[in-house]
Amino acid sequence: MNSGHIVKSFDEELEEVRNTIVEMGGLAETQLEAAVRSLTERNTELALKTIEGDKAVDELELAIDNMSIRLLALRNPVADDLRLVISALKIASLLERVADYAANISKRVIALNTAPTIAPISSIPRMGEMVRRMIDDTLKAYTNGDSDLAYDVWKRDQDVDQLYNSMFRELLTFMMEDPRSITSCTHLIFMAKNIERIGDHMTNIAEIIIYQVTGEMPKEPRPKGDKTSVTMIDNETP
Amino acid sequence: MNSGHIVKSFDEELEEVRNTIVEMGGLAETQLEAAVRSLTERNTELALKTIEGDKAVDELELAIDNMSIRLLALRNPVADDLRLVISALKIASLLERVADYAANISKRVIALNTAPTIAPISSIPRMGEMVRRMIDDTLKAYTNGDSDLAYDVWKRDQDVDQLYNSMFRELLTFMMEDPRSITSCTHLIFMAKNIERIGDHMTNIAEIIIYQVTGEMPKEPRPKGDKTSVTMIDNETP
Repeated sequence: MNSGHIVKSFDEELEEVRNTIVEMGGLAETQLEAAVRSLTERNTELALKTIEGDKAVDELELAIDNMSIRLLALRNPVADDLRLVISALKIASLLERVADYAANISKRVIALNTAPTIAPISSIPRMGEMVRRMIDDTLKAYTNGDSDLAYDVWKRDQDVDQLYNSMFRELLTFMMEDPRSITSCTHLIFMAKNIERIGDHMTNIAEIIIYQVTGEMPKEPRPKGDKTSVTMIDNETP
Repeated sequence: MNSGHIVKSFDEELEEVRNTIVEMGGLAETQLEAAVRSLTERNTELALKTIEGDKAVDELELAIDNMSIRLLALRNPVADDLRLVISALKIASLLERVADYAANISKRVIALNTAPTIAPISSIPRMGEMVRRMIDDTLKAYTNGDSDLAYDVWKRDQDVDQLYNSMFRELLTFMMEDPRSITSCTHLIFMAKNIERIGDHMTNIAEIIIYQVTGEMPKEPRPKGDKTSVTMIDNETP
């Protein structure tokens, strides 16, 4: 295997790093889609398969790490090429966590499926689809070096945060009205939080792409929409 | 400032990266300690100060990134030195998130302090202290290249996970018995989860140290103790 690498040109090696990032991102996107679908379908088998699928993402991160370290050691890249390699290391670590979140959602689906449906799940697929599209566009922006599209993804994260805020409040209210739903709703809140975090990670990757293409970070401060850390719902008057 | 760097030797530059990691880790440890203390003291002022303190950690990550990229571009490190620089990039990104979790805990403290105490917080300081000591020992292991101590930290993460499991169950039960506590308990569950994640990140850093010192990863699979993703509490018989 390794002997094949030696005859590759520097540009081909850089291209291989880029392609592996896109492959890894595509896999992470599929994992998120499958995790959310296992919830809506109450499909424990799909959830188990998604948990198992996390390994493939981990292996791609390791492959990117090894390629990058090899490039750094043997090719001594500078300027834009060095930035590309460092970015790849960072993006791979973020994508690895995206897949971790998908696996965590799947674990919670398995738990939920052991009990009757008693909690409102409808916002989860909506959030999931918003964030899946963010992943998709982030990968397009990465492939094409499209900083406008990356900036668009960066701005969209606040919509995800807003949906998460309203879902957080809805689930708290639901638990208060029907305490039998507490365990299920708590899992749903964590699932929603996982999806919200995936959105955050796409924002991070979008910033890396914007910086790589333009040499600058977005000028505005990052739009921060997750207000749930400071949310209190008055339990006396639900 | 930069002109000062140019006259430094390669070893001095590597040493500066290592020192900045330790400084950043110390700051992250202080942030966690302050966040948990702001909870036990119901101290909103300290919580606000802790949120503000997150910026200093972010700046140190940026400093480590810049030092590392400079080193990679100008010094072309190989073998152990290259591994040290790549490890520093990874560790800095993990420590940045540790401080983020501390800031998130502080935000939730501010929310909790707007309502009367109605939820059991006692396990949080216990978990917080366990994990604070993990950070402390991780930094010692990093400074001294002590793979035994890193391995000890790595193993201790399951104790944190176990405490998190029991706290998760305790808080769910508490909510079922007293639905007025639902919002507060949900924030406490997230705080506990944040601390549990900090423990996970220390496990990751411990693995990086072990690999750097011994050239190998721990032989056993990572001890995984967080079972809460698959926890269901029977609401019919609380």
